[in-house]
Amino acid sequence: MKRFRVSVHIVPRKGLLDPQGKAVADALHTLGFSTVADVHVGRHLVIETSAGDAQHAEASVREMCSRLLANPVTEDFEIAAVAAA
Amino acid sequence: MKRFRVSVHIVPRKGLLDPQGKAVADALHTLGFSTVADVHVGRHLVIETSAGDAQHAEASVREMCSRLLANPVTEDFEIAAVAAA
Repeated sequence: MKRFRVSVHIVPRKGLLDPQGKAVADALHTLGFSTVADVHVGRHLVIETSAGDAQHAEASVREMCSRLLANPVTEDFEIAAVAAA
Repeated sequence: MKRFRVSVHIVPRKGLLDPQGKAVADALHTLGFSTVADVHVGRHLVIETSAGDAQHAEASVREMCSRLLANPVTEDFEIAAVAAA
Protein backbone atom coordinates (compact mmCIF):
# COMPACT_ATOMS: atom_id res chain seq x y z
CA MET A 1 0.00 0.00 0.00
CA LYS A 2 1.40 3.37 -1.02
CA ARG A 3 0.20 6.81 -0.04
CA PHE A 4 -1.43 8.94 -2.73
CA ARG A 5 -2.62 12.54 -2.72
CA VAL A 6 -5.72 12.86 -4.92
CA SER A 7 -7.08 16.31 -5.87
CA VAL A 8 -10.74 16.67 -6.75
CA HIS A 9 -12.75 19.58 -8.09
CA ILE A 10 -16.44 19.65 -7.24
CA VAL A 11 -18.29 22.30 -9.23
CA PRO A 12 -21.91 23.39 -9.69
CA ARG A 13 -23.38 21.52 -12.66
CA LYS A 14 -23.28 23.59 -15.85
CA GLY A 15 -26.53 25.43 -16.52
CA LEU A 16 -27.55 25.47 -12.87
CA LEU A 17 -27.63 28.75 -11.04
CA ASP A 18 -24.36 29.48 -9.18
CA PRO A 19 -25.39 32.19 -6.68
CA GLN A 20 -22.02 32.15 -4.92
CA GLY A 21 -20.21 32.75 -8.21
CA LYS A 22 -22.63 35.55 -9.09
CA ALA A 23 -22.02 37.19 -5.69
CA VAL A 24 -18.25 37.01 -6.15
CA ALA A 25 -18.49 38.47 -9.67
CA ASP A 26 -20.64 41.35 -8.39
CA ALA A 27 -18.19 42.03 -5.54
CA LEU A 28 -15.25 42.05 -8.00
CA HIS A 29 -17.10 44.55 -10.22
CA THR A 30 -17.71 46.75 -7.18
CA LEU A 31 -13.99 46.65 -6.41
CA GLY A 32 -13.26 47.87 -9.93
CA PHE A 33 -12.36 44.62 -11.68
CA SER A 34 -14.60 45.44 -14.62
CA THR A 35 -13.04 42.88 -16.98
CA VAL A 36 -14.49 39.95 -15.02
CA ALA A 37 -17.19 38.27 -17.10
CA ASP A 38 -18.12 35.29 -14.96
CA VAL A 39 -17.09 33.44 -11.81
CA HIS A 40 -17.77 29.86 -10.79
CA VAL A 41 -17.19 28.73 -7.23
CA GLY A 42 -16.67 25.10 -6.36
CA ARG A 43 -14.75 23.04 -3.86
CA HIS A 44 -11.19 21.78 -4.06
CA LEU A 45 -10.53 18.67 -2.00
CA VAL A 46 -7.20 16.98 -1.42
CA ILE A 47 -7.60 13.45 -0.12
CA GLU A 48 -4.62 11.51 1.18
CA THR A 49 -5.33 7.83 0.92
CA SER A 50 -3.48 4.53 0.70
CA ALA A 51 -3.88 2.18 -2.26
CA GLY A 52 -1.98 -0.46 -4.19
CA ASP A 53 -1.51 1.85 -7.18
CA ALA A 54 -2.70 5.16 -8.63
CA GLN A 55 -5.64 3.57 -10.51
CA HIS A 56 -7.03 2.11 -7.31
CA ALA A 57 -6.52 5.39 -5.46
CA GLU A 58 -8.46 7.25 -8.16
CA ALA A 59 -11.26 4.64 -8.24
CA SER A 60 -11.61 4.84 -4.48
CA VAL A 61 -11.85 8.65 -4.52
CA ARG A 62 -14.45 8.50 -7.32
CA GLU A 63 -16.55 6.29 -5.07
CA MET A 64 -16.11 8.74 -2.15
CA CYS A 65 -17.31 11.57 -4.39
CA SER A 66 -20.35 9.63 -5.55
CA ARG A 67 -21.33 8.47 -2.07
CA LEU A 68 -20.54 11.51 0.07
CA LEU A 69 -18.63 14.44 -1.32
CA ALA A 70 -20.58 15.62 -4.38
CA ASN A 71 -24.31 16.26 -4.56
CA PRO A 72 -25.36 14.21 -7.63
CA VAL A 73 -28.30 16.51 -8.34
CA THR A 74 -26.46 19.81 -8.44
CA GLU A 75 -22.74 19.10 -8.74
CA ASP A 76 -20.18 17.52 -11.03
CA PHE A 77 -16.78 16.32 -9.92
CA GLU A 78 -13.53 15.62 -11.68
CA ILE A 79 -10.29 14.08 -10.47
CA ALA A 80 -7.74 16.82 -11.09
CA ALA A 81 -4.56 14.95 -10.13
CA VAL A 82 -3.28 11.77 -8.52
CA ALA A 83 0.23 12.06 -7.08
CA ALA A 84 2.36 9.85 -4.88
CA ALA A 85 2.54 11.48 -1.44
CA MET B 1 -8.51 41.97 -25.22
CA LYS B 2 -8.92 38.23 -25.19
CA ARG B 3 -11.01 36.11 -22.86
CA PHE B 4 -9.16 33.88 -20.37
CA ARG B 5 -10.40 31.28 -17.94
CA VAL B 6 -8.23 31.33 -14.80
CA SER B 7 -8.52 28.54 -12.20
CA VAL B 8 -7.55 29.26 -8.62
CA HIS B 9 -7.21 27.02 -5.57
CA ILE B 10 -7.73 28.64 -2.19
CA VAL B 11 -6.73 26.32 0.64
CA PRO B 12 -6.42 26.58 4.43
CA ARG B 13 -2.87 27.59 5.32
CA LYS B 14 -0.68 24.61 6.22
CA GLY B 15 -0.48 24.01 9.94
CA LEU B 16 -3.80 25.70 10.66
CA LEU B 17 -6.71 23.60 11.83
CA ASP B 18 -8.95 22.46 8.95
CA PRO B 19 -12.18 21.46 10.74
CA GLN B 20 -14.07 20.91 7.49
CA GLY B 21 -11.39 18.52 6.24
CA LYS B 22 -11.42 16.70 9.58
CA ALA B 23 -15.22 16.34 9.39
CA VAL B 24 -15.03 14.93 5.86
CA ALA B 25 -12.28 12.47 6.86
CA ASP B 26 -14.36 11.27 9.83
CA ALA B 27 -17.44 10.86 7.62
CA LEU B 28 -15.42 8.85 5.08
CA HIS B 29 -14.13 6.58 7.87
CA THR B 30 -17.70 6.05 9.06
CA LEU B 31 -18.68 5.05 5.51
CA GLY B 32 -15.93 2.42 5.52
CA PHE B 33 -13.18 4.23 3.61
CA SER B 34 -10.58 3.23 6.19
CA THR B 35 -7.58 3.96 3.94
CA VAL B 36 -8.20 7.73 4.08
CA ALA B 37 -5.44 9.39 6.10
CA ASP B 38 -6.23 13.07 5.72
CA VAL B 39 -8.55 15.45 3.85
CA HIS B 40 -8.12 19.13 3.09
CA VAL B 41 -11.05 21.20 1.89
CA GLY B 42 -10.54 24.41 -0.01
CA ARG B 43 -12.24 26.39 -2.73
CA HIS B 44 -11.88 26.07 -6.47
CA LEU B 45 -12.70 29.24 -8.39
CA VAL B 46 -12.89 29.67 -12.14
CA ILE B 47 -12.75 33.32 -13.17
CA GLU B 48 -13.47 34.35 -16.74
CA THR B 49 -11.81 37.64 -17.43
CA SER B 50 -10.55 39.68 -20.37
CA ALA B 51 -6.93 40.74 -20.68
CA GLY B 52 -4.31 41.54 -23.27
CA ASP B 53 -2.43 38.30 -22.65
CA ALA B 54 -2.22 35.38 -20.21
CA GLN B 55 0.35 37.14 -17.95
CA HIS B 56 -1.96 40.08 -17.41
CA ALA B 57 -4.93 37.78 -16.80
CA GLU B 58 -2.95 35.91 -14.14
CA ALA B 59 -1.70 39.12 -12.50
CA SER B 60 -5.21 40.50 -12.36
CA VAL B 61 -6.56 37.32 -10.72
CA ARG B 62 -3.71 37.38 -8.19
CA GLU B 63 -4.80 40.86 -7.21
CA MET B 64 -8.44 39.71 -6.90
CA CYS B 65 -7.33 36.90 -4.60
CA SER B 66 -5.28 39.24 -2.42
CA ARG B 67 -7.99 41.88 -2.17
CA LEU B 68 -11.16 39.81 -1.91
CA LEU B 69 -11.11 36.09 -2.50
CA ALA B 70 -8.55 34.66 -0.06
CA ASN B 71 -8.32 35.45 3.65
CA PRO B 72 -4.65 36.42 4.08
CA VAL B 73 -4.61 35.30 7.70
CA THR B 74 -5.88 31.77 7.23
CA GLU B 75 -5.65 30.89 3.54
CA ASP B 76 -3.14 30.42 0.75
CA PHE B 77 -3.99 30.61 -2.93
CA GLU B 78 -2.38 29.34 -6.08
CA ILE B 79 -3.20 29.91 -9.73
CA ALA B 80 -3.84 26.41 -11.03
CA ALA B 81 -4.28 27.19 -14.73
CA VAL B 82 -4.71 30.03 -17.21
CA ALA B 83 -6.43 29.01 -20.45
CA ALA B 84 -7.83 30.93 -23.40
CA ALA B 85 -11.63 30.74 -23.19
